[in-house]
Amino acid sequence: MSLALLGSTGSIGVSTLKVAKAFNLPIELLVAGKNINLLNSQIKEFSPSYVVIADREDLDKVQGRGAKVFCGSEGIKEALSLCASPLVLNALVGFVGLEPTMHSIALGKKVALANKESLVSAGWLIDTSKIIPVDSEHFSLWYLLRGSKAFSSLLITASGGAFRDTPLHSIPTQTPSNALKHPNWSMGAKITIDSASMINKLFEVLEAFWLFGCKNIEALIERKSLIHALVEYQDGSMSAHLARPDMCLAISYALNPSLAQSTSFLPKISLQDLSSLALEPISKERYPLWELKEALLETPSLGVVLNACNEVAVEGFLGEKYLFGGMTKIILESMHRFSSLPALKSLEEIVEFDKEVRSFARSLKV
Amino acid sequence: MSLALLGSTGSIGVSTLKVAKAFNLPIELLVAGKNINLLNSQIKEFSPSYVVIADREDLDKVQGRGAKVFCGSEGIKEALSLCASPLVLNALVGFVGLEPTMHSIALGKKVALANKESLVSAGWLIDTSKIIPVDSEHFSLWYLLRGSKAFSSLLITASGGAFRDTPLHSIPTQTPSNALKHPNWSMGAKITIDSASMINKLFEVLEAFWLFGCKNIEALIERKSLIHALVEYQDGSMSAHLARPDMCLAISYALNPSLAQSTSFLPKISLQDLSSLALEPISKERYPLWELKEALLETPSLGVVLNACNEVAVEGFLGEKYLFGGMTKIILESMHRFSSLPALKSLEEIVEFDKEVRSFARSLKV
Repeated sequence: MSLALLGSTGSIGVSTLKVAKAFNLPIELLVAGKNINLLNSQIKEFSPSYVVIADREDLDKVQGRGAKVFCGSEGIKEALSLCASPLVLNALVGFVGLEPTMHSIALGKKVALANKESLVSAGWLIDTSKIIPVDSEHFSLWYLLRGSKAFSSLLITASGGAFRDTPLHSIPTQTPSNALKHPNWSMGAKITIDSASMINKLFEVLEAFWLFGCKNIEALIERKSLIHALVEYQDGSMSAHLARPDMCLAISYALNPSLAQSTSFLPKISLQDLSSLALEPISKERYPLWELKEALLETPSLGVVLNACNEVAVEGFLGEKYLFGGMTKIILESMHRFSSLPALKSLEEIVEFDKEVRSFARSLKV
Repeated sequence: MSLALLGSTGSIGVSTLKVAKAFNLPIELLVAGKNINLLNSQIKEFSPSYVVIADREDLDKVQGRGAKVFCGSEGIKEALSLCASPLVLNALVGFVGLEPTMHSIALGKKVALANKESLVSAGWLIDTSKIIPVDSEHFSLWYLLRGSKAFSSLLITASGGAFRDTPLHSIPTQTPSNALKHPNWSMGAKITIDSASMINKLFEVLEAFWLFGCKNIEALIERKSLIHALVEYQDGSMSAHLARPDMCLAISYALNPSLAQSTSFLPKISLQDLSSLALEPISKERYPLWELKEALLETPSLGVVLNACNEVAVEGFLGEKYLFGGMTKIILESMHRFSSLPALKSLEEIVEFDKEVRSFARSLKV
């Protein structure tokens, strides 16, 4: 048993290597982007057989130590095809993660999926029986359900992101550096922005739909990020899963469920932590994108539009082309423009359509 | 499949008949105490083959409609031996419930156990693999664990009972009628008093020990009685079980787990209910009996003392021989007197010892 790790230098990748080391799980493949220094130290420690980097121009910086080194998305496909690992942890960020998810499943591998965009953009093309969720909310739903189908609704939580207490009138003029100040989790830039805008929770609602086949999905704000999900059962009762915010828990169950059961990577929840817990509705005034939830659950394939325009909008926001309100505007206008969808029956059709949405989103003036 | 119901006219008994009716489960045996009117209407509705009442003097009031009618504890044993039912729901109140629990197990039956005193007074003599917990906290622990052994501690909740907000100085002088005002649950008199004194939670800590074989057991006050139990896992995470306070949930799983999964006897938990939840430590100042917890977990067989002196103390309190503080004093003094125990290896030895404790408790002047 060994692991193919896609996105090794991001926060999920680093946590995955920590868990893999604790579990003595060999790493067969490391896929990284531009952080070649960190990649080199990972190669030194884990001696993978295969390595993939984003850009050919970085090739001469890679200290491969005998690993076969590939480049770009074709390189990922090629390396995955050579891998014997039955498990791929996909922690790539963005739409680029979709093709490796589909390719891995086609190769008969299981995918521990941290790349949200795979399900959001193409849930209907993915055999979710091959997916192990690596996302705190979906992991918690899986943990609570343990395969039970006797539930009536699913509830995931949101921290509320960087602007949960910002005066409403000043949210549209917030800058990237403010949006990157997440109150509870230390994560990559893209997902931190997606938390501030609540788009991350829209993604997770869609992921929950594809993973658990249920449209009764609600989200509530839990400011401590201790409760990650709740399940409402047909018997009228509910259960909740609590853990300190640390992705090692979900990762450990993806890598080795039986070792994970008896290993704690997390600091314990204290009785003090439990002294007050609150679950509050998500305000559409504070989070205008939240009004998209009903339309997305009605037509879950609209996720492909949501993801494409969001990637463009976040890129522009992080590049300081506009402020927070500009980002929101691009997403809402793009969703309005593409409110009805063509049938998208293959990865190729999705890639084409994704380009069309991106091009429209880029053309918007804010 | 049919059911033998012990304690049919109490609140658990009435709820059990409601669930049995919904599940079309025949009732083979009804055991009741002094409420012959209600028993007669239950006989009319459920046509049991056997009936047991407490006192021979009530025999001529029973409208048996063809049922064979027995009296007293010998009558319960006799009727159980005649029953074909593989399941006995024991909702008798007090120490009198112990013998039927042991007798049912000896007959090869499973026992859905609402009689707390069975495990509290004789947990070490009972094969708990034959027990299905019918108590909201233990049911919730069972619901969360589903047989998993990968937990590190168990946490049950308490409402705080009738005096949770009473000024501390006036608690010792409270009367039975005040102690019977439970804030959340509508239950019988004995258990309502036991809630006000927190002895009910000491019983439940002991029950949890015998059922789940773990000494890391904590209890916290949850004022809404929505969260009934939490489990802390070895992986560092926790889960919680929530339900509106209604015993039909636990009863339904005891009677027919697969029907119970898809039947709701409870009003739903609303998002408003979840808007604030708090778990607070149990104050030893407010609940002086809570200081007994450590000694009980160290020597769980002390439960036999706790139950015996409590039954005497509650009886005297309900009979207005003394006020709330007098009841507490009798329990603390009795526990002090019997802090070391002889080995109690049989029901007979427990019954003898129970008498000795009762006699001591009755002799106390308060």
